Amino acid sequence: MQSPGEFEIIDRYFRDIGHRADVLLGVGDDAAVLEVPPGECLVATVDTLIEDVHFPSGLAAADVGWRSLAVNLSDLAAMGARPAWTTLSLSLPRADTGWLAGFAAGFAQLAETWGVALVGGDTVRGPLVVTVQAMGLVEREQWLTRSGARPGHLVVVSGTLGDAAAGLAAWRGGAGASQCERTLVERFTRPAPRIELGRRLRTCASAAMDVSDGLVADLEKLCAASACAADIDVGSLPLSEALRTVHPVDRRELYALTGGDDYELVFTIAEESFAALCAQQGLPVACTPIGRVRRGRGVVCRRHGEAISLPVAGYDHFGAGAAG
Amino acid sequence: MQSPGEFEIIDRYFRDIGHRADVLLGVGDDAAVLEVPPGECLVATVDTLIEDVHFPSGLAAADVGWRSLAVNLSDLAAMGARPAWTTLSLSLPRADTGWLAGFAAGFAQLAETWGVALVGGDTVRGPLVVTVQAMGLVEREQWLTRSGARPGHLVVVSGTLGDAAAGLAAWRGGAGASQCERTLVERFTRPAPRIELGRRLRTCASAAMDVSDGLVADLEKLCAASACAADIDVGSLPLSEALRTVHPVDRRELYALTGGDDYELVFTIAEESFAALCAQQGLPVACTPIGRVRRGRGVVCRRHGEAISLPVAGYDHFGAGAAG
Repeated sequence: MQSPGEFEIIDRYFRDIGHRADVLLGVGDDAAVLEVPPGECLVATVDTLIEDVHFPSGLAAADVGWRSLAVNLSDLAAMGARPAWTTLSLSLPRADTGWLAGFAAGFAQLAETWGVALVGGDTVRGPLVVTVQAMGLVEREQWLTRSGARPGHLVVVSGTLGDAAAGLAAWRGGAGASQCERTLVERFTRPAPRIELGRRLRTCASAAMDVSDGLVADLEKLCAASACAADIDVGSLPLSEALRTVHPVDRRELYALTGGDDYELVFTIAEESFAALCAQQGLPVACTPIGRVRRGRGVVCRRHGEAISLPVAGYDHFGAGAAG
Repeated sequence: MQSPGEFEIIDRYFRDIGHRADVLLGVGDDAAVLEVPPGECLVATVDTLIEDVHFPSGLAAADVGWRSLAVNLSDLAAMGARPAWTTLSLSLPRADTGWLAGFAAGFAQLAETWGVALVGGDTVRGPLVVTVQAMGLVEREQWLTRSGARPGHLVVVSGTLGDAAAGLAAWRGGAGASQCERTLVERFTRPAPRIELGRRLRTCASAAMDVSDGLVADLEKLCAASACAADIDVGSLPLSEALRTVHPVDRRELYALTGGDDYELVFTIAEESFAALCAQQGLPVACTPIGRVRRGRGVVCRRHGEAISLPVAGYDHFGAGAAG
């Protein structure tokens, strides 16, 4: 079979992902035309995934497709936005139809979960690099930022931490032996953006961001943006049953504090607002207080009140510890 | 000197490109928050540039920066939109501060020309791949598309054609010998998006797109979208003095018909509307009628009325003729 050309690729795999009435002109022209409702603002973010940096070579194409959109939707979740549109730029070494079909299926599966329309993009020949931009909408004056944390506020995280990093390690080790390992692997391959939680937090959290580079590294950025410090109690970290089963205590705490890719939300919130949030019906994901904001700079991890130090910092692509 | 980290790169080179009051939250949070005025729609496009595919290895970093934004602004021009915001995803083999400074300077130079703000992005370690998304604004119901061409309408192009392809050839040949060659090279390295012309065309052209893959290849896409055909008179092609000086007639026509990267606009327009357009004061760039829309399919190039055939087709990244 002849390999498909650039325009055929777009036509065959990417033309029909998501339909929305506010897409006035979609894939196929020089640009998309999109309608932003009155009273709402556009929220835009972009993330690039590179083979062997952001995902291991050999990861299933459908997982790459899902992840590439998930990491962007997670950014929208952290802003309190509802996702609307996405563009995709795909650089591929060759037009591998099996890979493309898998990628598109994984991408479309998550897009359809959240009613997101793919409105544009390009496919080019080159190294395997996936860049996705996600665009969402948020009510005027209601978006979340990293900069609103105040001393005394609780530090809270959604879901469980460390699973994705442990899952990646399990995947590399050829996991699948146990159900617990498979659960962890899926947390890496199929992260769930916390959109619904982000929407709830709009009106009650003081600051929020998503956990992509690791809890401590990301919380440090939130604290820097808010000009304050935070203490974390490592005994309070929410750890999954799977992580507890597979790893001993020191290892799982390390995953939870420094492992990336969880795509949970970390947020700060006044104590009474958190109580009101927890009292709501149907909180979409468990939320666990893990510490408190205070004056100062940086993040201190504590066990039984005593500061502890961490062996590994968060991920910086050009830093000393970055993967090649 | 220690090489800068990811966050330092963003801070040092990319935080301060463009300022706009409608950027409610810019670089530095999980996403940007942007204000779309009532009565206007968002126009979004994305393009990826890869070394040795979209630009030659060794091209000055400032030219890569300029081009990566220019090709996107050109898409906005083709829609009749005014540019507003951009995001940038930069994959780099290493944090080369000289290259980064050059890239950022070229990017910023064009961004500031059009009042575009850089509102987000990421820098990752990987092969040299640049993905830019541009977002613009257009009045409701006034955007241009590829699909409105009607039999009898004129086919018109802006500026001159073939210069960029000839410029790239000259650059590869180690140009610079003559002023004409330098002029052609600059047409490749510093394409000028036809924003002002696109704005004028909103209310008078029936269809428009930008010339990125070559006139014939792109006009074929416009015709396909409009379900019609077009005849082009090769004797009418607007050719620059520089191209005429450097290349013989057959070569320059080939550049003009099939060479990519000109980033001129090709549009269709009723004859009387074109007359009115030309009568306006201060048309931002010369516009030359080169043919006419008719019923049918495809694009036919004619010399003195006789159909001629072309040796080379447009660029398709995964097609037989694509560069590696």
